[in-house]
Amino acid sequence: MNVLIWNEHRHEQQNEEVAKIYPDGIHGAIKEFLETDDIHVETATLDEPNHGITEERLAKTDVMLWWGGHLAHHEVADEVVEQVHQRVMEGMGLIVLHSGHFSKIFKKLMGTGCDLKWREADETERMWVVNPSHPIVEGIGEFIEIEKEEMYGEHFDIPAPDELVLLSWFEGGEVFRSGCTYRRGHGKVFYFRPGHEAYPTYYHKDVQRVIQNAVRWAKPTDRTFSSYGNAKALENIKPKS
Amino acid sequence: MNVLIWNEHRHEQQNEEVAKIYPDGIHGAIKEFLETDDIHVETATLDEPNHGITEERLAKTDVMLWWGGHLAHHEVADEVVEQVHQRVMEGMGLIVLHSGHFSKIFKKLMGTGCDLKWREADETERMWVVNPSHPIVEGIGEFIEIEKEEMYGEHFDIPAPDELVLLSWFEGGEVFRSGCTYRRGHGKVFYFRPGHEAYPTYYHKDVQRVIQNAVRWAKPTDRTFSSYGNAKALENIKPKS
Amino acid sequence: MNVLIWNEHRHEQQNEEVAKIYPDGIHGAIKEFLETDDIHVETATLDEPNHGITEERLAKTDVMLWWGGHLAHHEVADEVVEQVHQRVMEGMGLIVLHSGHFSKIFKKLMGTGCDLKWREADETERMWVVNPSHPIVEGIGEFIEIEKEEMYGEHFDIPAPDELVLLSWFEGGEVFRSGCTYRRGHGKVFYFRPGHEAYPTYYHKDVQRVIQNAVRWAKPTDRTFSSYGNAKALENIKPKS
Amino acid sequence: MNVLIWNEHRHEQQNEEVAKIYPDGIHGAIKEFLETDDIHVETATLDEPNHGITEERLAKTDVMLWWGGHLAHHEVADEVVEQVHQRVMEGMGLIVLHSGHFSKIFKKLMGTGCDLKWREADETERMWVVNPSHPIVEGIGEFIEIEKEEMYGEHFDIPAPDELVLLSWFEGGEVFRSGCTYRRGHGKVFYFRPGHEAYPTYYHKDVQRVIQNAVRWAKPTDRTFSSYGNAKALENIKPKS
Repeated sequence: MNVLIWNEHRHEQQNEEVAKIYPDGIHGAIKEFLETDDIHVETATLDEPNHGITEERLAKTDVMLWWGGHLAHHEVADEVVEQVHQRVMEGMGLIVLHSGHFSKIFKKLMGTGCDLKWREADETERMWVVNPSHPIVEGIGEFIEIEKEEMYGEHFDIPAPDELVLLSWFEGGEVFRSGCTYRRGHGKVFYFRPGHEAYPTYYHKDVQRVIQNAVRWAKPTDRTFSSYGNAKALENIKPKS
Repeated sequence: MNVLIWNEHRHEQQNEEVAKIYPDGIHGAIKEFLETDDIHVETATLDEPNHGITEERLAKTDVMLWWGGHLAHHEVADEVVEQVHQRVMEGMGLIVLHSGHFSKIFKKLMGTGCDLKWREADETERMWVVNPSHPIVEGIGEFIEIEKEEMYGEHFDIPAPDELVLLSWFEGGEVFRSGCTYRRGHGKVFYFRPGHEAYPTYYHKDVQRVIQNAVRWAKPTDRTFSSYGNAKALENIKPKS
Repeated sequence: MNVLIWNEHRHEQQNEEVAKIYPDGIHGAIKEFLETDDIHVETATLDEPNHGITEERLAKTDVMLWWGGHLAHHEVADEVVEQVHQRVMEGMGLIVLHSGHFSKIFKKLMGTGCDLKWREADETERMWVVNPSHPIVEGIGEFIEIEKEEMYGEHFDIPAPDELVLLSWFEGGEVFRSGCTYRRGHGKVFYFRPGHEAYPTYYHKDVQRVIQNAVRWAKPTDRTFSSYGNAKALENIKPKS
Repeated sequence: MNVLIWNEHRHEQQNEEVAKIYPDGIHGAIKEFLETDDIHVETATLDEPNHGITEERLAKTDVMLWWGGHLAHHEVADEVVEQVHQRVMEGMGLIVLHSGHFSKIFKKLMGTGCDLKWREADETERMWVVNPSHPIVEGIGEFIEIEKEEMYGEHFDIPAPDELVLLSWFEGGEVFRSGCTYRRGHGKVFYFRPGHEAYPTYYHKDVQRVIQNAVRWAKPTDRTFSSYGNAKALENIKPKS
């Protein structure tokens, strides 16, 4: 199974505090806990040619992770977004992390504005499991508690998720749909809220477990691609007057 | 209540057979059965300036109907599509008819390819009601039978509908999700399959009733628009170490 | 439109504090804000013969409201539950309020245990709108704040709602799916969380508005009931070898 | 992984034609293609003591399959139904096959009547995949064609499925939601339509593949069971006046 982690990777280079938390970048931290004997992980970042995303690389990717949609996101080429979208239609899984809610690829897949409320105030987040049989929360207790996180609050301008898995409580008074699955084309999409760059969220064991589970859940289903267009009748059609 | 019917209106001008069926255009035929004391209906077509869709006109529209997405759809300006999308986000209802499945606005709202199988073979369609309590099928029996229609067949490349209301059986052997509701932003969207230009489908009483019902279902909900962006805390946040 | 409010009506008779808040019973308080020119409201309580629910009365009821599922709920006759269930299958709307989550009728309609976490601690509840175009939240702002309520917390053991409309934040750290729609048979069901007997929740203008909206949303759709059982073929079936 | 196949097993004993098709019973035929190195399969039938379903046996079952709900279903003890329901709430997967749509356990899980139209007329069924990325259709083409089957037609009186995977076309003019997933409590449920006793449906490779996939999809998610009831606050609650 081939996984590609895409990270904007600007915060880590521009902000010393972030660099201390994620010395190898957020993508490096995620790679660390994702790689196993049967999962091969590569990474790509904004400043690489073509943002590190070639058609060849996409073609062999089973599941892609996407971090970033705020700081430098206007620099992401529309052409690359089209390529990623096409691969999701073909079956590639996509895990959209945190600020990726505002990425071009997530907006294109959702068809809505994807806006929300936010606040940086070192506040406690508690993500409650509301879909107890979902494989994405295997090994997770009743909730995941994160001592300090950025707040994302409702209304979150997304389509109703196909499956709502996690709901966040925030100390400052808001709630948020934090773990949402979608099927788009032949691909599976999971949005997972936590992961602000200023906090060590990706070292949290439960956050890691959810992402590990999500990658396995999102892997392509082995089927021939659908055929579209003009189709011959499978049964006789009676002549009409 | 203000309704705006948009129709590509090229088939009717280019094809004598179509012109005979719809001498006032498909938009004219739909206007005929939609207009009532409390519903004011206007129409717009591709060849009008700005395709007949100005921001001013959109601003006062409660529900828009959209016919067309094949023949001349590449001529629809992206800017107009953006304006319509923005109005759906703000709460305008949108009823997408037949070939509108391939329109830019529907694809943008769905986030998928929206492709399907099709065939023109004078075949019988029978749309079965699978959501018996939905207001969109008020007054409709167990199924709607149309003697001759174009076939649209699965796989239909759309997100799973929020509500599946009607399922089509086709004589040639296919099935199709023919009545699908979606909520996008503050707006409601209904896709309704039948309505090939070469058949008198819009004179069918049950087809008319579904569209009448859908327009009432899709009307904007009277609420203040959500606020997004940076948000003050509603509760005290404890200082963290 | 005929509405029937069912209330256990024991708390009000056994507890002076509750009686002070709801001198005419919870059903009386709800009747007060539901009755309009086009909505006729009746009430029924546990201690009436047949709990005030006769088949004749049910037959003419369009929407029923149900309060209570804890204190004396074991006294509710199974036969009456069957009758109410049958009427929902036929198209009657059902609004289940607060402790009604544990009522026999709600459990029967859901097919799950319907259990939850709870706490009586005078805590603040803030219900956020997550489905901004839903008619049930017409006239409601971004959230409804209730200064003091009983807490109900996840995991709430229900099927995933057809539509999730409201999400609660609780001061003590929990979240809850507080406004949930379901379609069952030909009927519509809405579960609405707030309404603990020890608080004046049903005098809250926004709570009243949600219930008013829900009653209109839940009204039966005017259609002939489906036919089931052995069915004649609508098309020719070829003889097989 | 432990699988338990329950079969009414009366048709096979009462009807010679059925006995010829399924000499080891329908349960025997299903066991044959389900058993693998990592899946241990046992069977149970109506006429065994406790219908072959003891609490001990249920406790170790990961996924149960259920065939039958018509012929002798009134003989199934309510107590056994309660036990199976309880195990689904705890996480056991349940695959409901064909006439199981009318079984007590399926009705109890659905909360609706689960009725439908039916016809025995040797007619062709074509099940179309409408959820192309679902693991239950891995290895399946665009449709599954069965030359001769019993017809089940809409309206099928079930709650809207959490995921609709397969849609049937029938030669006689009907459609049917044939592959439906549900989550109930901590368990997963899959309803799969085909499998009339008078036809060799369970020898069809694609039908076998769907059931094999469904068993793996339905396996319990490894998590601690939720706690319900009175809950201590996780955060400070301010005293109210």
